[in-house]
Amino acid sequence: MAQYRILIDANDEKGLVYKVSSIFFEKNLNILTNNEFVDKVNGKFFMRSVVEGDVEASELKELIQKALPKASNVNVIEPAKKNIVIMATKEIHALGDILVRHEEGELDANILGVISNYDNLESFVSKFNIPYFTISHEGLGRAEHEEKILQKLSEFEDIDYIVLAKYMRILTPRFVEAYENKIINIHHSFLPAFIGANPYKQAYDRGVKIIGATAHFVNNNLDEGPIISQEIIHVNHAYSWKDMQRSGRNVEKIVLSHALKLALEDRIFVYANKSVIF
Amino acid sequence: MAQYRILIDANDEKGLVYKVSSIFFEKNLNILTNNEFVDKVNGKFFMRSVVEGDVEASELKELIQKALPKASNVNVIEPAKKNIVIMATKEIHALGDILVRHEEGELDANILGVISNYDNLESFVSKFNIPYFTISHEGLGRAEHEEKILQKLSEFEDIDYIVLAKYMRILTPRFVEAYENKIINIHHSFLPAFIGANPYKQAYDRGVKIIGATAHFVNNNLDEGPIISQEIIHVNHAYSWKDMQRSGRNVEKIVLSHALKLALEDRIFVYANKSVIF
Amino acid sequence: MAQYRILIDANDEKGLVYKVSSIFFEKNLNILTNNEFVDKVNGKFFMRSVVEGDVEASELKELIQKALPKASNVNVIEPAKKNIVIMATKEIHALGDILVRHEEGELDANILGVISNYDNLESFVSKFNIPYFTISHEGLGRAEHEEKILQKLSEFEDIDYIVLAKYMRILTPRFVEAYENKIINIHHSFLPAFIGANPYKQAYDRGVKIIGATAHFVNNNLDEGPIISQEIIHVNHAYSWKDMQRSGRNVEKIVLSHALKLALEDRIFVYANKSVIF
Amino acid sequence: MAQYRILIDANDEKGLVYKVSSIFFEKNLNILTNNEFVDKVNGKFFMRSVVEGDVEASELKELIQKALPKASNVNVIEPAKKNIVIMATKEIHALGDILVRHEEGELDANILGVISNYDNLESFVSKFNIPYFTISHEGLGRAEHEEKILQKLSEFEDIDYIVLAKYMRILTPRFVEAYENKIINIHHSFLPAFIGANPYKQAYDRGVKIIGATAHFVNNNLDEGPIISQEIIHVNHAYSWKDMQRSGRNVEKIVLSHALKLALEDRIFVYANKSVIF
Repeated sequence: MAQYRILIDANDEKGLVYKVSSIFFEKNLNILTNNEFVDKVNGKFFMRSVVEGDVEASELKELIQKALPKASNVNVIEPAKKNIVIMATKEIHALGDILVRHEEGELDANILGVISNYDNLESFVSKFNIPYFTISHEGLGRAEHEEKILQKLSEFEDIDYIVLAKYMRILTPRFVEAYENKIINIHHSFLPAFIGANPYKQAYDRGVKIIGATAHFVNNNLDEGPIISQEIIHVNHAYSWKDMQRSGRNVEKIVLSHALKLALEDRIFVYANKSVIF
Repeated sequence: MAQYRILIDANDEKGLVYKVSSIFFEKNLNILTNNEFVDKVNGKFFMRSVVEGDVEASELKELIQKALPKASNVNVIEPAKKNIVIMATKEIHALGDILVRHEEGELDANILGVISNYDNLESFVSKFNIPYFTISHEGLGRAEHEEKILQKLSEFEDIDYIVLAKYMRILTPRFVEAYENKIINIHHSFLPAFIGANPYKQAYDRGVKIIGATAHFVNNNLDEGPIISQEIIHVNHAYSWKDMQRSGRNVEKIVLSHALKLALEDRIFVYANKSVIF
Repeated sequence: MAQYRILIDANDEKGLVYKVSSIFFEKNLNILTNNEFVDKVNGKFFMRSVVEGDVEASELKELIQKALPKASNVNVIEPAKKNIVIMATKEIHALGDILVRHEEGELDANILGVISNYDNLESFVSKFNIPYFTISHEGLGRAEHEEKILQKLSEFEDIDYIVLAKYMRILTPRFVEAYENKIINIHHSFLPAFIGANPYKQAYDRGVKIIGATAHFVNNNLDEGPIISQEIIHVNHAYSWKDMQRSGRNVEKIVLSHALKLALEDRIFVYANKSVIF
Repeated sequence: MAQYRILIDANDEKGLVYKVSSIFFEKNLNILTNNEFVDKVNGKFFMRSVVEGDVEASELKELIQKALPKASNVNVIEPAKKNIVIMATKEIHALGDILVRHEEGELDANILGVISNYDNLESFVSKFNIPYFTISHEGLGRAEHEEKILQKLSEFEDIDYIVLAKYMRILTPRFVEAYENKIINIHHSFLPAFIGANPYKQAYDRGVKIIGATAHFVNNNLDEGPIISQEIIHVNHAYSWKDMQRSGRNVEKIVLSHALKLALEDRIFVYANKSVIF
């Protein structure tokens, strides 16, 4: 028996659930989970079902597509390890959390490699038998540097997600467009507060009582892509900004790993610069 | 156009969503929200839909019932104010939170009255023009006292929920059975920790770093009914148990009001001493 | 035996704790709680002690002042009910939470009155036997309107704090300066995110997964005064901005009441547009 | 200039802060942080100061001890890496979190070794160049097995803390007494709820809406030692107990690492089966 994750988004109209569920019934499929959401403001329908049964993915997709209005998007996905590349700079915590989870078998992913603009993390990453590529930006323009990274990325086949685990350089539109809704970033603030550089310093200066972290897809506007997950911790006047940074790492790594897990399980729809998450 | 909340629970089998959604489609209903859950362990299916359209509640219920297996439970509810009675003892906070929300129009409820075993809260409640009934337990056995309360309750018609807003006496099986899954209690601990009397004192003695509150339906085993909602706050060594009690009140009132809101919106299924909440 | 709250802030130097505690010892005072904090960045020392003993407040203050460097600020406060005025617009929840807590005896305050630019809340407030003053802004310039409010405020004696319980109009510098660090506002967002109008709408549009509320002192820059307290709740794609607003009210009222409590207990120092809270 | 952490606990009486701070002043020490707490119920005084200056630890300790009542405990600690041994069974997450933090330089500790009753984690731990000792319980009585572990532990010198990173066997009184208030355990529930085996299964069966984790010192009563740190996450009806277990791991590792950090920084006092944490 095969298992499929079926993701549908469509313009909302009556009968969509009926049409999809009638196919499930017809093909004698067992529904494991079923989630729907209608965005009334934008008139959009979202559905994610996990089903089991004896049917080919291609046949199932065709049946659903035929039953739904033309503009609908239908994905029938067989659960399988996804291919990810991690980009980092110098910090271990977020990267390390992903590597340990991977080791533990918690992440349904192949980690094809780690790319960094420094070599600091190489010995750490190599403990895990994962290829490490130092691509220094030293002496290069932003475009040139990215060109070298894009070149390296092109050597991997079928990258599902690029995870920016505290990669501290801004990506150009060209890079972002090449991997639309495939780049997951962790921003070390509770967005949209403290956009930009050194958010912990900004948070300290502002005297906030809570700090946070935000995992989001990267789009062309820095720190303004669709938010996937956010979490916070309480701080007080006794925290220096270094203390905030240190404490913030706990949230950063948990939030990034959580967002990655949602992505690997095909739980995220992106629409109108937001995420719908089942 | 009428709006209905449809609540279904059934033994799980293939085609349930299809059968229900085909009726929605046939009757040209607009689905506002739709939630399903299958408890694989117990083989139970739960569904809550909010629909709009031109159909009678009775007809809709009949159609769904006919389409589903015999043992299924189908409720078709027209959103309307529900009738509630509040029971309290001496503390204002949980009771007051409900009365203020009611005043604000946030609760879809008629508050038929407040019953207490003391008269302390009478002047407060009467500010809100809500009938207050002091039924003292002084000099009465538990059964006698409850008899008088049951008598008073019987004078109201169609009580949907009884809310125990810090009512500090234990109810007998007879009382509980008379209002099965209709009595919502707030327990001032993070159940199942600190069952029984004076949980804040217990929590203080144990040196916990977190305290909480639990809203639950009342059944015959004290503090062991189905949990609806829980919330916590952090404490530390500097909290006396009185401090914990004082801080705990913030959580108690929020959790109880939240649970009441879920009940008033027909979002709760009770099954196997647990709640399924959409 | 008298009880005093002693608040000291000074330029940091060696021996401050020694000098203060030697006076406590000399005067045979019992220390109930004692908190110190040194802001290393700004070289500032903060101390709050609660002591008991047989000494006059004025004598104690003089002794401490003499022992410390000239520029130090010393406050010796006898715990007593503080005088507060609440300003509101149309919403009940934050105002109601304060009134119920007041009724419950939880707030060490005299509520001198409630001022609103609408009469909507009058019947609610009058239940609590608290004077209500409608000062409409209708047809008035901002300055004129504020002049009338300032006039009303001047009729009360010794206002300790003005609480803006969802007062939805911006105060001018003139007003703010008249009550420096005495005006406590609740902003319905997790500042500094979503400064300005309709933060829930902004939060919805941004697709955040967490919303919050911030209590702060009001200064001349809108929403940029020293933060006292912040709290958050999780939301998801299924929340409309009205849902966010409704859920947000729970946090708003808890945060505002908490900030007020801290102020009434003389626990807040304001320095460098931040708060130090013991 | 030397830096010291000074930890004092004493029977409460007037003048303690004065006596200690006068020594700081006399020896011209710079106070970096200073925390005091008085447990009024038990009449106990706790103080932790971090100071800098030109003085020997031994002299400082002697001075303070002489100044305070005889029964007082005074510790003057020079910040230095502490020696820890980790015990684990089969799970990676809590152990891995400590190893990555150690690698990152976040933990002020030498990890002398990892002891497990299985060899499953050996290849993982050896990546970090940390000695791994499999001491199987296979075919051994509890006492015999522990004897072998105690033997191994005795080979290390000066163990400051033993960290049970999901070590799934119960320790006997003999073992516990040998390392009193030196064994830090993570219990995968929000203690005191769900004491004993398989707490996630218990939590699932009870239908809770929140699960948690508790780090505590181990004493002779299973899961009843002094609590150091607790944290929770929200769950709902859709979580199987395996889902709870999976999600719970995030909390477990964060809570355990946090407790370890507090211990390494000498921030914890243990008294009356509770912890005072500065």
